[in-house]
Amino acid sequence: MADPETVEGEREEIEGAKAASAKTAHVVFTPSGKRGDFPVGTPILQAARTLGVDLDSVCGGRGICGRCQVVPGFGDYPKFKVKSQPGCISDTTKVEARYADKRGLKEGRRLGCSAQILGDLVVDVPPDSQVHRQVVRKRAEVRNIEIDPIVKLHYVEVQEPDMHHPSGDLERLETALQEQWGITVDRADLPVLQTLQKSLRQGDWTVTAAVRNGHKLVYTWPGFHDKAFGCAVDIGSTTMSVHLTDLQTGEVVSSVGAMNPQIRFGEDLMSRVSYVMMNPGGDKEMTAAVQETLGFLLVQAATEAGIEPNDILELTLVGNPIMHHLMLGIDPTELGWAPFALATNEALRVWASQIGLDGKVNPGARAYFLPCVAGHVGADAAAVVLSEAPQLRDELTLIVDVGTNAEIVYGDKERLLACSSPTGPALEGAQISAGQRAANGAIERVRINPETLEPRFKVIGGDHWSDEEGFAETARKVGVTGVCGSGIIEVLAEMYLAGIIDEDGVIDGALAAKSERVVAEGRTFSYILSRPDGKNPEIRVTQADVRAIQLAKAALYAGAQLLVDKVGRPPERVVLAGAFGSHIDPKYAMILGLVPDCELDRVQSVGNAAGTGARIALLNRKARDEIRRTVRAIEKIETAVEPRFQEHFVGAMAFPHKSAPFPKLRAAVQLPERKIAAKGGESDDGAEGGRRRRRRRG
Amino acid sequence: MADPETVEGEREEIEGAKAASAKTAHVVFTPSGKRGDFPVGTPILQAARTLGVDLDSVCGGRGICGRCQVVPGFGDYPKFKVKSQPGCISDTTKVEARYADKRGLKEGRRLGCSAQILGDLVVDVPPDSQVHRQVVRKRAEVRNIEIDPIVKLHYVEVQEPDMHHPSGDLERLETALQEQWGITVDRADLPVLQTLQKSLRQGDWTVTAAVRNGHKLVYTWPGFHDKAFGCAVDIGSTTMSVHLTDLQTGEVVSSVGAMNPQIRFGEDLMSRVSYVMMNPGGDKEMTAAVQETLGFLLVQAATEAGIEPNDILELTLVGNPIMHHLMLGIDPTELGWAPFALATNEALRVWASQIGLDGKVNPGARAYFLPCVAGHVGADAAAVVLSEAPQLRDELTLIVDVGTNAEIVYGDKERLLACSSPTGPALEGAQISAGQRAANGAIERVRINPETLEPRFKVIGGDHWSDEEGFAETARKVGVTGVCGSGIIEVLAEMYLAGIIDEDGVIDGALAAKSERVVAEGRTFSYILSRPDGKNPEIRVTQADVRAIQLAKAALYAGAQLLVDKVGRPPERVVLAGAFGSHIDPKYAMILGLVPDCELDRVQSVGNAAGTGARIALLNRKARDEIRRTVRAIEKIETAVEPRFQEHFVGAMAFPHKSAPFPKLRAAVQLPERKIAAKGGESDDGAEGGRRRRRRRG
Repeated sequence: MADPETVEGEREEIEGAKAASAKTAHVVFTPSGKRGDFPVGTPILQAARTLGVDLDSVCGGRGICGRCQVVPGFGDYPKFKVKSQPGCISDTTKVEARYADKRGLKEGRRLGCSAQILGDLVVDVPPDSQVHRQVVRKRAEVRNIEIDPIVKLHYVEVQEPDMHHPSGDLERLETALQEQWGITVDRADLPVLQTLQKSLRQGDWTVTAAVRNGHKLVYTWPGFHDKAFGCAVDIGSTTMSVHLTDLQTGEVVSSVGAMNPQIRFGEDLMSRVSYVMMNPGGDKEMTAAVQETLGFLLVQAATEAGIEPNDILELTLVGNPIMHHLMLGIDPTELGWAPFALATNEALRVWASQIGLDGKVNPGARAYFLPCVAGHVGADAAAVVLSEAPQLRDELTLIVDVGTNAEIVYGDKERLLACSSPTGPALEGAQISAGQRAANGAIERVRINPETLEPRFKVIGGDHWSDEEGFAETARKVGVTGVCGSGIIEVLAEMYLAGIIDEDGVIDGALAAKSERVVAEGRTFSYILSRPDGKNPEIRVTQADVRAIQLAKAALYAGAQLLVDKVGRPPERVVLAGAFGSHIDPKYAMILGLVPDCELDRVQSVGNAAGTGARIALLNRKARDEIRRTVRAIEKIETAVEPRFQEHFVGAMAFPHKSAPFPKLRAAVQLPERKIAAKGGESDDGAEGGRRRRRRRG
Repeated sequence: MADPETVEGEREEIEGAKAASAKTAHVVFTPSGKRGDFPVGTPILQAARTLGVDLDSVCGGRGICGRCQVVPGFGDYPKFKVKSQPGCISDTTKVEARYADKRGLKEGRRLGCSAQILGDLVVDVPPDSQVHRQVVRKRAEVRNIEIDPIVKLHYVEVQEPDMHHPSGDLERLETALQEQWGITVDRADLPVLQTLQKSLRQGDWTVTAAVRNGHKLVYTWPGFHDKAFGCAVDIGSTTMSVHLTDLQTGEVVSSVGAMNPQIRFGEDLMSRVSYVMMNPGGDKEMTAAVQETLGFLLVQAATEAGIEPNDILELTLVGNPIMHHLMLGIDPTELGWAPFALATNEALRVWASQIGLDGKVNPGARAYFLPCVAGHVGADAAAVVLSEAPQLRDELTLIVDVGTNAEIVYGDKERLLACSSPTGPALEGAQISAGQRAANGAIERVRINPETLEPRFKVIGGDHWSDEEGFAETARKVGVTGVCGSGIIEVLAEMYLAGIIDEDGVIDGALAAKSERVVAEGRTFSYILSRPDGKNPEIRVTQADVRAIQLAKAALYAGAQLLVDKVGRPPERVVLAGAFGSHIDPKYAMILGLVPDCELDRVQSVGNAAGTGARIALLNRKARDEIRRTVRAIEKIETAVEPRFQEHFVGAMAFPHKSAPFPKLRAAVQLPERKIAAKGGESDDGAEGGRRRRRRRG
């Protein structure tokens, strides 16, 4: 066999004159390590595509979008056996200069579509130039979000119409998408047709097309358009929130929230269902209210972010089953009584216009509802699972999503169970005398001196503790207006630790002699957390407040314990989610016994995990299939028909529990001495205790 | 080989004792001739399904729908080698008795789902029990319509919800459809979800589901529901018509029509496009007008037929490109100037609610738009092709669909061409002094005595000619109110035959001396067709009327001739379609020279073929694919840029034509002697003649 170099040399001599492009160069892309030989003169983007390198482009290589930015590396790369020299890449082109002038181009960066390969080269694709870039989440234990939204933008040049070969503008656009992007459109929305002809002509026969799921044409803009947003929507019973998100970068560009307008139809879910039962057509009223509020929030989010509603192309929605049904215009009556039948337990995709959002978003926008798990366990639970992914973990994880109806998920990669528990809104700060939602002025941190019984606290929006210099200004500027959900947990736990309330939840009236903070109020006592001033009201914790939290936390505990019973092993990890959960200190939640015992450092508050799950489903289309599969496999437990629920509930009224010993908690925190005689057995907190209790009360 | 009968006999002896059901009987179904052996006791429906016999059922064999009616035949059938005896079928069952009592059952008929096979039997499936029954069309030369609508009804029994195994009502319905009908639903509409829970409970866990295209769930009704209708909609420039059709029988249950409300924006299409160009937003006004009128017509059609709007599940729409675009809310401006770009040339399926029909039809109803052929050749032309199917024929067929814009199709199974021609509305009776649409009181038949020049005529809604006894009553009761499109063709042709107008279209003023019917009107003359009485106005044909028809028919002829030129061979068959075309006498159309020469007995008027095409697409889903394929293959000719169009137009102003000799017509009808010297060559009617004509005028 002849020496290949010689042969190569000969070939070059013979063919060299023909075309310089016959010369090839070796190119290595980092971080992928993909490599190959290309004719000199090949644009870097083209080489990347040939090799399947993850290099983005919206404009299809026309130097408009700037998504294909790369960083050529120069030097000796022994690892790749490549010497990469400045001369191995073409000089800055006019296209690049124009782009740099218009939109800026960082030192050392080149546009992959414009820069040509002249010799052996190492090229780095920075994270922001990768199609499948990731949104990094702060918590180490959760997966990053890979950006792969269901709607993508593609810039195309479209053939002009020819009278002699008549064809529709749409069909020529489809041909362009096929030829320039390899996309086969099999369905175009009516709004596309209604605007396409103007788009094409305004864009001088170029448009940017929004393509859904790789085959559905949902909208076009004239010329180059680089804005595509989506909204992750969490419809809570008490609050609704919208996270307006850039579908291309994953960035949340604005977040807005509002009270759920349905509160006027009843604070908890069942009273809303009752409203429908008592008022024929009431469901339509409630549907209109919640759809209107969402529309309002969308406009607010778009305005805050300074974007056009037309650029919102996709929504993902999560919520409990009743809110899910009401948002979809489905009468929720069947969810109000056994057997709690859902209209559907599958994920749903509808037009945004079908849920009253006409004009608030792009006319081609779709709304994707994550699947409900069961009649009492909603799409919010599905979203929490998507965010926390217990189904991928070895350790047994207990997730409680605290809302007006708490949704509880328990399990690991072998098995996942879910149920819900009617906690009521107390843990969110509602039905508490001084309760309020987590907003500026709400007390969120509390410490009580066990000697003096004097409290100190912090409010949302203020930097100082109430006993620090500077708090006076906070009180004046921000105010001290009430107690939010996490604040009420803390104050009760501190009251318990300080001995102001006993494990049975009774405020000790005898302490009135010791502290002016403890005051009689009828036949019971209250604790004055904050004294009134000219501007701010008195904030006290009443015996009724303690009872409300006891009922709520007992329901939460009972539901969780039910799942723990089914699995037969205690949780190795606890995740506290929910609107209240972002600021809660896990320690205090455990002291009050909101959930079964667990190592304190294995208990986390993760905030609005349902909202995060909605955002994952918004940014990554594969996540939708994943959560649908996972939800199908979840074992659904109906607490209402589980006889042990009531037993667990009664036992869990006490702090942290009447009979469960909570050894892991006690190892970490010094709890007050028990007055009620504890029984052995961690989960045996049942009928016996309940009966005893009832006897004692009777 | 052993005698099979003996073997059979032995088997029976051996196995007979085992089970009576092991005994089999031989069943032959007619007309299909399908046959097989079945265990004694098998219901006839089940046997039919096993053999793939075309026997219908909506209720799935529960004795509710009565669609599986069969007629057992008794006697000796040597052809099938079967002796069929009354004892070979079970006695009338309770289910049958109940059905007969409630809905009636013809003598000799049995319900296939209930009657069991007891012995060898011949069973006839009457046409009305066949799934794929046919709608027989009156004209022998067109295909019957096989009923295979895209939406079908299926009755199912659904599992009740179980709290312990929670699942959505929808998912249990889908399971039932899979198990009971073999249907895999892959998509359910939101309206289904919004009503499903009530339907299931009202129907005591039985519902009838409307399934689209075999996989899409569009609606449910409680219990058994046997009504499914569709509407074939023809959106003409001048009139709109709706044919409400039973999707299960193909029967048209009501037909309603209205003037197109867009007439107020301009009588012809181009003036409507001009309106949009001059009035920004004018397209939205026009869209609203046409959508409202369609909604009104749908309500009217449903009311006349006594059906619920909710039972209308599908619409098919045809119309010219401008009306097509306007109905869809697409600005038609681009259709107003070269290159006449369509927004799309493909078929379209949208929700009926997307074209403003919310509440007028079932919320799950879809509107299917047949594809437009080209910028000037609409979905109505596609529908005409579907109805007449020239693409399946050996003979060269010329189809003209006369509307305000005539659409012309020419070809055979080898090749099909299409164009349009701007005839204006004269041929539909508009822009004619006494013109009116084809309604009661309109003159539609005319004869003129060539000696006396006296006319006789008939009006729509009257049985007598105007010179017959009894016409006075018609005139009094029905009225003589104007002339419709076909009437204007007849009166002009008769005037030409009688010598009142010459081949150049001039009313001969010299005849005023001979007849009082010919009167001067300014510098021209008119012909009085009907004298006024106390109730009815005078009806006269003016010189301007003749000119209007000349312009219209010249445009029509020129378009048709253009296509004939392209093919290079004259038509072997002519089809006159259009609202005007149902009553027109082909002879008169030929005498005036509306289309190129053809054997008179090969010229047919077929009425509203576009409407028929829409009805075919409504009743048969395969027809939709067929017409899409056909339309794609049609060669589109743009008359506006064909230089010969103008030449053909000028030549065709004369009756029947200035230079084309029309030998086939002349062989059948004695035409007046020509005043203009004819030139040889059938289609050479062009530039030379035109120049001569202009010189003569100058």
